Amino acid sequence: MAAWSSSPSLRHLLLLRPRVPLSPTCLAGSFSRRHIHSHSRRRLFSSASSSTLTHGDEASTHADADGVVDVNPPRGTRDFPPEDMRLRTWLFDQFREVSRLMAFEEVDFPVLESEALFIRKAGEEITQQLYNFEDKGGRRVVLRPEITPSLARLIIKQGKSVSLPLKWFTIGQCWRYERMTRGRRREHYQWNMDIFGVPKVRAEAELLQAIVLLFQRLGITSSDVGIRVSSRKVLQAVLNMYSIPEHLFTEVCVIVDKLGKLTRDEIEKELMSTGLSSEAVQGIIEVLSLKSLSKLEEVLGSGVEAVADLKKLFSFAEQYGYADWICFDASVVRGLAYYTGIVFEAFDREGKLRAICGGGRYDRLLSTFGSEDIPACGFGFGDAVIVELLKEKGLLPDMSRQIDDIVFPLDEELEGPASSIAFSLRKKGRAVDLVEDKRLKWVFKHAERINASRLMLVGNSEWERGTVRVKILSTREEFEVKAGDLE
Amino acid sequence: MAAWSSSPSLRHLLLLRPRVPLSPTCLAGSFSRRHIHSHSRRRLFSSASSSTLTHGDEASTHADADGVVDVNPPRGTRDFPPEDMRLRTWLFDQFREVSRLMAFEEVDFPVLESEALFIRKAGEEITQQLYNFEDKGGRRVVLRPEITPSLARLIIKQGKSVSLPLKWFTIGQCWRYERMTRGRRREHYQWNMDIFGVPKVRAEAELLQAIVLLFQRLGITSSDVGIRVSSRKVLQAVLNMYSIPEHLFTEVCVIVDKLGKLTRDEIEKELMSTGLSSEAVQGIIEVLSLKSLSKLEEVLGSGVEAVADLKKLFSFAEQYGYADWICFDASVVRGLAYYTGIVFEAFDREGKLRAICGGGRYDRLLSTFGSEDIPACGFGFGDAVIVELLKEKGLLPDMSRQIDDIVFPLDEELEGPASSIAFSLRKKGRAVDLVEDKRLKWVFKHAERINASRLMLVGNSEWERGTVRVKILSTREEFEVKAGDLE
Repeated sequence: MAAWSSSPSLRHLLLLRPRVPLSPTCLAGSFSRRHIHSHSRRRLFSSASSSTLTHGDEASTHADADGVVDVNPPRGTRDFPPEDMRLRTWLFDQFREVSRLMAFEEVDFPVLESEALFIRKAGEEITQQLYNFEDKGGRRVVLRPEITPSLARLIIKQGKSVSLPLKWFTIGQCWRYERMTRGRRREHYQWNMDIFGVPKVRAEAELLQAIVLLFQRLGITSSDVGIRVSSRKVLQAVLNMYSIPEHLFTEVCVIVDKLGKLTRDEIEKELMSTGLSSEAVQGIIEVLSLKSLSKLEEVLGSGVEAVADLKKLFSFAEQYGYADWICFDASVVRGLAYYTGIVFEAFDREGKLRAICGGGRYDRLLSTFGSEDIPACGFGFGDAVIVELLKEKGLLPDMSRQIDDIVFPLDEELEGPASSIAFSLRKKGRAVDLVEDKRLKWVFKHAERINASRLMLVGNSEWERGTVRVKILSTREEFEVKAGDLE
Repeated sequence: MAAWSSSPSLRHLLLLRPRVPLSPTCLAGSFSRRHIHSHSRRRLFSSASSSTLTHGDEASTHADADGVVDVNPPRGTRDFPPEDMRLRTWLFDQFREVSRLMAFEEVDFPVLESEALFIRKAGEEITQQLYNFEDKGGRRVVLRPEITPSLARLIIKQGKSVSLPLKWFTIGQCWRYERMTRGRRREHYQWNMDIFGVPKVRAEAELLQAIVLLFQRLGITSSDVGIRVSSRKVLQAVLNMYSIPEHLFTEVCVIVDKLGKLTRDEIEKELMSTGLSSEAVQGIIEVLSLKSLSKLEEVLGSGVEAVADLKKLFSFAEQYGYADWICFDASVVRGLAYYTGIVFEAFDREGKLRAICGGGRYDRLLSTFGSEDIPACGFGFGDAVIVELLKEKGLLPDMSRQIDDIVFPLDEELEGPASSIAFSLRKKGRAVDLVEDKRLKWVFKHAERINASRLMLVGNSEWERGTVRVKILSTREEFEVKAGDLE
């Protein structure tokens, strides 16, 4: 819970890289300090048998040998009490609104997927930390670590009925399994936007526009945040220069993605272990340190696709008007095996946080599932780092509860009129809290706590006249209104 | 997929009873016939190793011995392509809006929970069909079959910081594991509304109001749907009459819940096997056949709590104005072990469908987790049967896609202006689809398909004048607008 600062231990997290690093911190708890105390281990006796609950070294977290059960959610997962849920809903609404503006359609997939969708051999952390199981039918299943493979699966399934280009977004929970240390999480929510059927970098330009649009709506500026852009084709060109065989490409990408997390020595060692010459290793590392597109052009030559793609993308950024948000950085390769072209990630310019979001082009994912390829690109945007950033910048909105009316019968006999008043106001679209069996003092405090606009007091003398007393809570105005005239 | 009618084989499903029966049919596919063909088993070669994918008798569904992978989601689960997602979003928005009108707060919990939360010994189907696993740390975990235990867990965790009464709702996915037959599903989404801290039947009256409000908003009337109401205390009173020991109560409830699914003989046999006398068994079955509250009062006497509670609830129904929606039916007991008082379920009056939703009072759930009890009640409302009903009644809304503007550069050179026009319209809140590399004919067809309001053609001669051609698609009106004046 103290994870909002970038403590060194959290840096380990960078080793996990779905499109967006799974988050050690969380949306829940980001501003609700009152729950922190309750995270202490409260255990209660359960009616459940404990006989099956005591395997393994970590099992004690959830069930002690004596049958005591934890009231916390499973390790590394979150509950969303109302105040945290309001924040999550607000953030998801922002994701949805930007997706709507960009004319993307929402889709969804099961959080439980077949393990086969996620098994890749490139040594990505994401596939090494699968939250996988064997189900009762002997199937290998997994709580998905990322959403893109499900997307690809659905597109293959829909086949010819799909009209291209296709622009889809989804907001879903992703999971990883690793040994827990304090403050690290095993799940996060991720907003994904993907475009299928557009081979040109226009698609990447649209994705970047969406990300910038989101930042702008949240009040974040280009002096807070930047987006680093490169292309896998840069690395491909370097490998070609040294005549390095094609099959090493993905593995090299996954290794160089660790630049900045591992030391240079460690990276070199890993690269050497794939069989590269030390000349090639040096060449790779030098090119990846480039931060200027014209330098890259000097090194690779202007005829190279990597350079042409990047130049085109930066020209788009000018035309859209978000060039101040993006910069070329050859060291960006992203940790997923399937990227083939442009890759990008958003970062806070103060350098305190992990990547805010990341994505790229993956033109050959479908063929790894045995289907015909469709050019595609997309990004994943997690729910954790963005909230940290908003908090740091003081940009989190007011998340207090809001109710229209409280209806309160002053006498138990008046529960009937109170019921019909509540029902009729609700039918008219008012959010009505019907309160009973409390003192008036409590009701006023409650009204303040939930930001009620009006208080409707149903009292005997008024009701005899067919009226209720209405109090506007902001102005303290009070007047009598006929029950039938309430709205 | 042909499961919208109530075929006999689907009746088996009634054996599974979380608060709401998990659904054999699905929201997805409810009106998108075009996906039906794609549910046929398309298998594709996968790049994944198949070595770990071939256990068990059912494993062939997802991975054949030869490493072929299915493009369908895991058995019994659904993808939500755009048209199905629009329907789901619309339905969830209705759930959320009613919850807002009732002044409930949204919460959420992990879909993965500790198994211990769900182990109960009453023989409920819901606990016999747990979608459970052992995780890598040896913990017994489960994809939750229902949401109430998580709710109870969070309330215990929050402890004294919670202000009662508390009114929470959630919309979440629930899972069951059982052998699959055609058309049955292993997951559904469930809307839950729960009230903690109100011992009086006012709480149940509010829940019923919420359900009625939802039906009304959906266009469903009280001649389409009714809500059967009874109380677990009815059965309790009968057991008392025959001096049947307290500990048999839950078990008897779970058995009599099968009335109408098993034959009367089978029910009698199951009841006898718990050790009840045949006189008691006959007594139980007779009382449960009552459909009149005054008859019940005759049999049990007026001093009995069951009768007082039910009379109070029916009087509330009159006062709210939804009495025509509810009826007393002693046979309603619901299949969950933890109910203690009023229980109810909504049904279609034509009797074609399974229960639409169900719930009741569970005043003693918290103590089964070792905490102090708080009076509570709630309901679960699934996403499947309601959609079947809406479809039958012709009440499904138009779910077509809706876009504000299409921006289309008539020449590749104009991709720059097109970019900036799209960005500025999006910043003004317009949903903009930017289309390139298509023929004008395709663009018009596309505009029709996605219900675009306007088409913005960026052409050379107009652009030289700093304008674009705007076409209002409903009226076919066309005019030129200065780029800066577009909004």
